[in-house]
Formats: sequence, C-alpha cells, structure tokens
Amino acid sequence: MMKPDFIQRLHDAQNISDSMVCVGLDPDLNKLPESFHVRYGSPQSAVLAFNEAIIQATAPYSCAYKLNAAFYESLGSCGFDVLKTTVSLIPKDKIRIIDAKRGDIGNTASKYAESIFGLLEADGCTVAPYMGLDAVEPFLAYEGRAVFVLIRTSNPSSDQLQSLIADGKPLYAHVAHLAFTWGEEFPGSIGFVVGATNPTELRDLRNLYPGTPFLIPGIGAQGGSIDAVASAATPNGLVLVNSSRGILYASSGEDFDKMAANAARELRDKLNHAVNSHAD
Amino acid sequence: MMKPDFIQRLHDAQNISDSMVCVGLDPDLNKLPESFHVRYGSPQSAVLAFNEAIIQATAPYSCAYKLNAAFYESLGSCGFDVLKTTVSLIPKDKIRIIDAKRGDIGNTASKYAESIFGLLEADGCTVAPYMGLDAVEPFLAYEGRAVFVLIRTSNPSSDQLQSLIADGKPLYAHVAHLAFTWGEEFPGSIGFVVGATNPTELRDLRNLYPGTPFLIPGIGAQGGSIDAVASAATPNGLVLVNSSRGILYASSGEDFDKMAANAARELRDKLNHAVNSHAD
Repeated sequence: MMKPDFIQRLHDAQNISDSMVCVGLDPDLNKLPESFHVRYGSPQSAVLAFNEAIIQATAPYSCAYKLNAAFYESLGSCGFDVLKTTVSLIPKDKIRIIDAKRGDIGNTASKYAESIFGLLEADGCTVAPYMGLDAVEPFLAYEGRAVFVLIRTSNPSSDQLQSLIADGKPLYAHVAHLAFTWGEEFPGSIGFVVGATNPTELRDLRNLYPGTPFLIPGIGAQGGSIDAVASAATPNGLVLVNSSRGILYASSGEDFDKMAANAARELRDKLNHAVNSHAD
Repeated sequence: MMKPDFIQRLHDAQNISDSMVCVGLDPDLNKLPESFHVRYGSPQSAVLAFNEAIIQATAPYSCAYKLNAAFYESLGSCGFDVLKTTVSLIPKDKIRIIDAKRGDIGNTASKYAESIFGLLEADGCTVAPYMGLDAVEPFLAYEGRAVFVLIRTSNPSSDQLQSLIADGKPLYAHVAHLAFTWGEEFPGSIGFVVGATNPTELRDLRNLYPGTPFLIPGIGAQGGSIDAVASAATPNGLVLVNSSRGILYASSGEDFDKMAANAARELRDKLNHAVNSHAD
C-alpha cells in the first residue's frame, strides 16, 4: 500500500537531512541584526533578507520550516507577500507549515484553507479545535497536506482548559481522540501539536497515536525536554521538533546565520543522539 | 464612577442608531453583484466598492461592523489593505470588530494584538480560548478595546468540545468563568461570543454575566432565535447581534445595497420589538 502523501514527504524530508528539526521562521523586526535596519530600505526587504539567510544556513540541518502568521501580519500591508515569498524560498524537499492556529465555522474555515493551502501553497498548517470538526474539514479537502490540531500546547496557561477533567480524562485527551477520528477518512492528513514542556503527556499521547505526525514546540526558549521528544520520536520518527528563537536569534551580530546553522545542527545532533539512546 | 470606555462606546453606538445590529462584512468575491466584476478592474476595488456601499446603506440601522479576517486573507496580497481601508470607511461612532479568532502563546499573541489593535485600529476582536490567558493578555494592554472570547459558538460541530462535562459543568461554562476572571482587572475589556443557536445556554450565560458585552452570531443563515437574543438583551442592551450573509446578500442584483439596508432595518426592528415585549 502506498503511504499517504504527507507522511511520505515528511519521511523523505527527514531522511535527506537526517533531521527532525523544524525551524520556526518568526522574524521579529526588533531582533534582527542591527546592520539590517541600515542596510535595507524597508522592513519588508530586511525580513526577507533575514529569512533567506536563515533558510540557506539551516537547510542542511532541518526537515521543515514553520512560519508563524502573527509575525508577518504585524508587518501590515506587505505581510502576506513576505509570507508568500518566504514560503517560496524554502527548498521544495522541506515541509512548509503555516502556524496560524485558525479555527472558524465552515464557510470561513474554507476561506482560511484557500489562503493557506491555495495561495500560500503550504504543506501544513495549525488549527485550533474549540469549534470542532467544522474548523478543520475544509482543510482536509486539500490532498497531501496536513492539518496540525492543537492538542497540548507548551505555554504556561495551557493547563487552564486543556487539563480540565471530563469523563475521567483531561480535555486534551478528548481533543486528541476527536482529531484522530477526523483524520480517519483522510489518512496522514491530521497531525497533533503537542508541547515538549509536558513530557509525560507527550509520551502518553505518542503511545496512543503512534502513526500521527506530531509537531512539537517548546524546546529552547520555552524549556521543553529533549529526552521527552526523543522518546516520542522513537517508534518511527514522525515528529517535527520546532525551535524558533533558539535558532533565529542565536546571535544578534553579523554572524547570525552561522550561529543559526550551529544551533540547528546542535539541536539535530542532540535529538538524533537521544533517539539512538532510546532505541538501544 | 465613569463607565469603562468600551462599554460606554457600545452604549453610545447603540443609542445613536437605536440598534443592536452588527453587520458582518464577509465579502465573498463569488457573491458580489455580477456587474461588479465588469465594472471594477481588480478584486481589491470590487470588494472595497461593495463594502463601502454596504456600510453607507446600513449605517443608519447598525451600531457595529464585524470584519471576518478569513475573507480578506483569501484575497492574498491586497487583503490587509482592503481590511484596513474598510475599517477606515466605517463611521467613527460605530464599533469596529475584527473577527479573527486568534489564539497563541504570549509573544505571538502580542504580534496579533499589534496587527489588529495597533495597525488596523479595531475597537474589538475575537479570540479562541484553548491556550488560556496567554492568548488573551496581550490584547488587554490596549485600553478601551474589547476582546470577545469564544464561549459557545453557533456552528453544527460546536458541541464536540464545548458541551463536554467537567466538574458537573459544560466546558463552555468553564471558559465563561475563566474569561470573566481574565477581565476583572480590566473592566469592560472582555466580551463573550455566544451563538443565537443555543437559546437556553444563551439565557443562562446572560443571567450569570449580565455586565459582559455579548457578540451574538447565528441569526439568519445559521437559524438562530431572535427571541432568545431579545431575552439576552433585556437587562441592559449589552449585546451585539451579528448578521453577515442575511444582510450582504439580501439581493444579488443592482439593488443589493437597498436590500441590505432593508434587511438591516428589518432585523433592528424585529430585535427592538422583541426586546420591548420582553421588558413589558
């Protein structure tokens, strides 16, 4: 049986770079190297030059890029074009995810899908689950793409709702079960967002859903555990481990791209080492 | 004691127009009057001309406008400018809400707030609650604006999570309580999104949170109850009743603006009549 497109593409992207690292392209104007503001005439060209340098430097050590929509929207008029151009700068053998956490009723969700999968031509996107299947379904109509549903997020206040107990199970476990069933008709099309900051929950979810791609934020600035991530990756490697600030701003000087490459390579090697230890 | 800015502005906007109607500006290129595609050279100018005509025609009968971000994002490059120009076309005595349902970790949520409250200068926006306070807090830093948190949505699959029972209460009731507490330090800054399609729940929430502004979708195309909305409005009128498709596409011919005005006036009058009956 042929593997579903997205899963096959993810495996290929991981094999080429021997990496599970996803680089988060969240360009913050206030954190670009100082010289950029002098060298480039507009925020648009500064951000594009920064993104291009980061992509070139980190491509050998990463399998995916995740573009956080908020950072582009805060650029105003040029935001969409910077987002679209950045997607086009990413090598085609990488997975390109728009982290937009959209979620709305059906007719609106189909407009979001049109923008993210149609116009931006992303391979994946993130979606919030609060409104149920309606928010996800229009994205599933795009073959070979993946929708990563927020299950257990990495932020401090994530417990407020996600850990509420209903029928003896935390809310996030209900969401995981629901999201899994949404994907049954579209194999490989549903992924989970599960933070590295809750290692036990990450492991439990991995055991329950071994065939679902996991997008794992929370490493680095947010303090998540490499070991937990490695444990989740062990069955078949279907995890994307995101690092944004830890790679983008490894240095604020002229060597930002070299230092970003170092940070990406170091994360890749740490992850691979931890995975190999788990597999032993 | 002075009333909080947003609540005062909402009362003023409602008094001027004697209306609780919020017009949903969700412009769908496929539903514009046929002549628009011939008359205007670009999607951008067609949508702006449509929005301007709708705003002019409906302003006498409405207190607010809600712009659904998805419909603008699906326009691509020009989406942000069309959104920003549309906000600027709305009379300043109306409430202007960006319906974006954003929700992310703190550093990202602050970028969304910068875009929606900073660049677009909206008075309110919608936010999804799944990630907890972190997703809402950066918006609260903007004085006099309101964040409408999704509590009980109007779509068919809203039950899947929102009706799960935790500690004897449905999830949406937990979200309402949490969102209410988030606003305690910032009076008038938190509103609730509660659909008109669940009349009993709408009434119950209204009784528990009589001082919170409610943004109520689900009237019209989604089949919500005018009577339930009127009942929720009775204590103090702090409700915004949204209609999008029922007003925008009341006619697909050249009389679209006149028919939109009629639909807005009719909804206003029905709501006011029902509220007066409840108050008797």
